[in-house]
Amino acid sequence: MVDVGGKPRTERVAVATARLRMKPATVRRIVAGKVEKGDVLAAAQLAGVMAAKHTPDLVPLCHPIALSAVEVEVWTRRAGVDVRTEVRTVDRTGVEMEALTAAAAAALTVYDMCKSVDRGMVLESLQLEHKAGGRSGTWSRRARPSGRKKRKAPA
Amino acid sequence: MVDVGGKPRTERVAVATARLRMKPATVRRIVAGKVEKGDVLAAAQLAGVMAAKHTPDLVPLCHPIALSAVEVEVWTRRAGVDVRTEVRTVDRTGVEMEALTAAAAAALTVYDMCKSVDRGMVLESLQLEHKAGGRSGTWSRRARPSGRKKRKAPA
Amino acid sequence: MVDVGGKPRTERVAVATARLRMKPATVRRIVAGKVEKGDVLAAAQLAGVMAAKHTPDLVPLCHPIALSAVEVEVWTRRAGVDVRTEVRTVDRTGVEMEALTAAAAAALTVYDMCKSVDRGMVLESLQLEHKAGGRSGTWSRRARPSGRKKRKAPA
Amino acid sequence: MVDVGGKPRTERVAVATARLRMKPATVRRIVAGKVEKGDVLAAAQLAGVMAAKHTPDLVPLCHPIALSAVEVEVWTRRAGVDVRTEVRTVDRTGVEMEALTAAAAAALTVYDMCKSVDRGMVLESLQLEHKAGGRSGTWSRRARPSGRKKRKAPA
Amino acid sequence: MVDVGGKPRTERVAVATARLRMKPATVRRIVAGKVEKGDVLAAAQLAGVMAAKHTPDLVPLCHPIALSAVEVEVWTRRAGVDVRTEVRTVDRTGVEMEALTAAAAAALTVYDMCKSVDRGMVLESLQLEHKAGGRSGTWSRRARPSGRKKRKAPA
Amino acid sequence: MVDVGGKPRTERVAVATARLRMKPATVRRIVAGKVEKGDVLAAAQLAGVMAAKHTPDLVPLCHPIALSAVEVEVWTRRAGVDVRTEVRTVDRTGVEMEALTAAAAAALTVYDMCKSVDRGMVLESLQLEHKAGGRSGTWSRRARPSGRKKRKAPA
Repeated sequence: MVDVGGKPRTERVAVATARLRMKPATVRRIVAGKVEKGDVLAAAQLAGVMAAKHTPDLVPLCHPIALSAVEVEVWTRRAGVDVRTEVRTVDRTGVEMEALTAAAAAALTVYDMCKSVDRGMVLESLQLEHKAGGRSGTWSRRARPSGRKKRKAPA
Repeated sequence: MVDVGGKPRTERVAVATARLRMKPATVRRIVAGKVEKGDVLAAAQLAGVMAAKHTPDLVPLCHPIALSAVEVEVWTRRAGVDVRTEVRTVDRTGVEMEALTAAAAAALTVYDMCKSVDRGMVLESLQLEHKAGGRSGTWSRRARPSGRKKRKAPA
Repeated sequence: MVDVGGKPRTERVAVATARLRMKPATVRRIVAGKVEKGDVLAAAQLAGVMAAKHTPDLVPLCHPIALSAVEVEVWTRRAGVDVRTEVRTVDRTGVEMEALTAAAAAALTVYDMCKSVDRGMVLESLQLEHKAGGRSGTWSRRARPSGRKKRKAPA
Repeated sequence: MVDVGGKPRTERVAVATARLRMKPATVRRIVAGKVEKGDVLAAAQLAGVMAAKHTPDLVPLCHPIALSAVEVEVWTRRAGVDVRTEVRTVDRTGVEMEALTAAAAAALTVYDMCKSVDRGMVLESLQLEHKAGGRSGTWSRRARPSGRKKRKAPA
Repeated sequence: MVDVGGKPRTERVAVATARLRMKPATVRRIVAGKVEKGDVLAAAQLAGVMAAKHTPDLVPLCHPIALSAVEVEVWTRRAGVDVRTEVRTVDRTGVEMEALTAAAAAALTVYDMCKSVDRGMVLESLQLEHKAGGRSGTWSRRARPSGRKKRKAPA
Repeated sequence: MVDVGGKPRTERVAVATARLRMKPATVRRIVAGKVEKGDVLAAAQLAGVMAAKHTPDLVPLCHPIALSAVEVEVWTRRAGVDVRTEVRTVDRTGVEMEALTAAAAAALTVYDMCKSVDRGMVLESLQLEHKAGGRSGTWSRRARPSGRKKRKAPA
C-alpha cells in the first residue's frame, strides 16, 4: 500500500456507473414489486452504500479512508438496471475504488434478487465516469457514442 | 433471506467470468511486471479468492455458506484482462453470487493497481457462465458470437 | 466458546422483538416518506438481515453458524416502530443471539435515520419471544399484560 | 450516506445506556463468578468496545469514523445489569450510533452468556443520554422519574 | 482454496501455543491488575476466541468453517505470558490455522495492553502442538528440550 | 480504548519482523514454486498488507486508524522465511500493532500454504523493531547477537 502520508488531505470525489442487462420481463417484475425477495432497487441502493465501506477489505491495496459521502442511485431501463454512485472524502487518496465497488455491489444485489427468474443477466459495463481532487487532478470519461448516452439518472 | 432449511445439502458449483478492457500498453506493463504496485495478476487472483468469502457481507440476502473450493484464474489478452472463477460448496443454496463476487473483486483489483496509468479501463462483462446442483439444476450460458469465444483460460 | 461438536445438527428457530418508542410526529414522518435519509423501514429491514450474519463478530462466544433463514419485519405504531425477527438454522447450536442482534440492528437503524429530528427515542424492549429445537427444547415468553399485547405484526 | 465533507472536524462525545432486566438469581450467579461461560462483565465490557468499531457495518448509513475513545462500563443491580458507554471522536459527524451500538452489544453479550439459565431476560432500555459537539450542539436526556434515577455507575 | 468438497465431515481438533517473553516487572504488573488498559489476561483470552472466527479473513486460502469449540487459556510465567488454544470442528478441513490465529491474537493483545511499559516484548514461539482428525490423521510435536517443558497450563 | 482525542495528529511509523523456521526442503519447495497452493511469498505479502487493515478487529483496544502506508517484505532463508513490515500513519496513535499484526498474518499464511508438507514449522520470533513519532518518541530494539543479525531484507 503506497505511502500517501506526504499528500495533503484534500476534497475528492469519484463517480462510477454500472449497467446490468436483463430481460424486459425481469425489469417489469422489478418495477411491479413482484420479485419474491423484496424491493430490488431499495436493497441494491443500500447494498451499494454499505459496500463502499467494505472496499479496503476487498481490494488489497486500497487505503482505509474516512468517506464523507456515499450516494447510490439505482433505476430501471427497458431491458436493464443502471447504477450511478458518487463517493466523496477529504483525505490523502482518492475514492475511485469505493465508487466502483459500490456500483458493483448494487448490481450484484440486483442479480441476486432476480437470478431465480433470469440467470442470464449480464453486467455489461462497470466504469469510472469522473474523478476530481488530489495530485492527479480531474478526469472525466469522454463522451460515449450516442446509443449509450442515456446513462444519466432520470430527473 | 429465504428459508433454505428444508433443502438437502448437495454439491453445487458456479462458474463466472469477468472481462476488463484496457489499453494494450497497460497490458504490456502488467505482463512485464512494471506496475509499481506489484504483481497485478497474483494480487487479483488472491483478492478474488478472499472476496468470495465476503459475499454475504456485500450481497444482503446471501446466505453465509461453507465454501468447499474457490478457484480464480486471471490472465491477459491483447487489450485487457480476463477472469474466470469457479466456486464449489456442499450446501443448501448455490454459489453463483460467490463466483460473481470473486470475479468482480479480481477485476477491481486489476483496476486499482493500474488506474494511475489507465483510468479509462472498463469492466465490459461480468456474468455467470454455468451453475450446477440444487433444485434448479444445471444452467449454462449459451454460446456467444465468435468474436468473444476466446474467453477460455489458456492451456 | 463451548463445545457443540457432540450435539446433532437439528432444525432450530428463534423469534425476537424490539420496540422503539418515538414521538408520534416522527412516526408520521416515517410513514409519509419524509425522512431525509431515505426509506426508514426498508433500510431497517435490510440492516436487520445483514446484522444477523454479523452476530459472531459482535457477541464474543457465539459460534459462527450457517443460517438457513432470516426474516425481519418492521412496522410503525402510533408512537414507535416495532421489529420482529425470525431466524432459522439446521445446526448444533441455537439462533437466539442472531434473532436478537437482527432486531437490535433494525431498531438502531431506525434510530440513526430519524435521530436528527428526535434524539430522545428509546428502545424500550428487546427480547426473545420464542425458540425451538436443540437439547433445551422449546421456550416461549409468557403472555404479557394486555397493554403490550399488540406487539404482533399486522396481518 | 449524507455528505459531511463540508463540516469541520470537531470534538464530539456521546453517552448511551442499556438496562438488562433478569432474575436476581442470575445476577447473583454473575457476581459469584458462577456462569459457566466465564466472566460475564469483563466479556460484555470488551464486546462493547469492539462493537463500537463495527458500527458502520451494522448501521447502513453510518459514516466510518476514527474513534478517539470508547469507554464501556458494565455493572450489576439487584435484578439486572446496566451498561454505560461513552464514545469520543474528533471528526465531521457524531458518535451517537457508536455509543448505542456498544451498549447494545455489551447487553447482548450478557444475554448470551446467561441465557442457558435465564432465557427471559429483557433489554428494557437502550437510549442516548447525552451528546455534545457538532452543528446540532449539546443534547441531554431530561431527568427520569425517581425510580429509574439510579442508572449511574457506582463510584 | 483447494477443493475439500469430496472429503467427509469428520471431527477435528488442533492445539497451538504461543509464548510471549517480557520483563518480570511487566508480568508482576499484569498479575497485580495494575495495567492501565484493564485485565490483560481476560482481554487476551477473549481476543483469541474472537480471532479464531476471523481466520478466513486473515489467511487467504483458509476455508470458512463452522467451529464447534474454541478454548483459549492465557497464564503468566516469571518472565512472560503463555497461551494455549484448542479449536474443534466437525468439517471437511482442519483447524490448525484457527488455533494458531487465536494464539497469535491473544499474544498480540497482551503486547498491545502492556506495550507502553515494555515495548521490547518478543513473541518467541507460536506453533502447532497437536492436530487430529481428517485424512492426514494425528500429528503431535515431539518433546522439546527440558528447558521449555513447562509450557503446560497450570492445573 | 484510551482517549487519544487530545493528542495531535503526527506522522508515525512502526517496523516489525517475524521469523518462521522450517525444514530446508520446505524452503526449497517455496523457492522452486512447487507448493501446490500457489506462490507462497506473494500470498504472504498480500495477506500481511490486508491484515494490517484488520488490526482493530483483532486487538480489542486498538483504535481504528487511517493507515497511510503498509509495506510487507517476505523472503526465504536457508531454513525459514523472514517477514519485515513497515506501517505508517498520520494520526493520534501509533501503528505498532498494525506492523505486528501484518507480520503475524504473513507468517501464518506461509504456514498455511506449506503445512501439508511441514507441520512442525515454528514462528520463532515476532517483534517490534522500531517505532517513531508520537508522545513516546522513537524506540529501536537493541542490536541482537551476531547469529541473528542477518534479519535484514536482501538488497
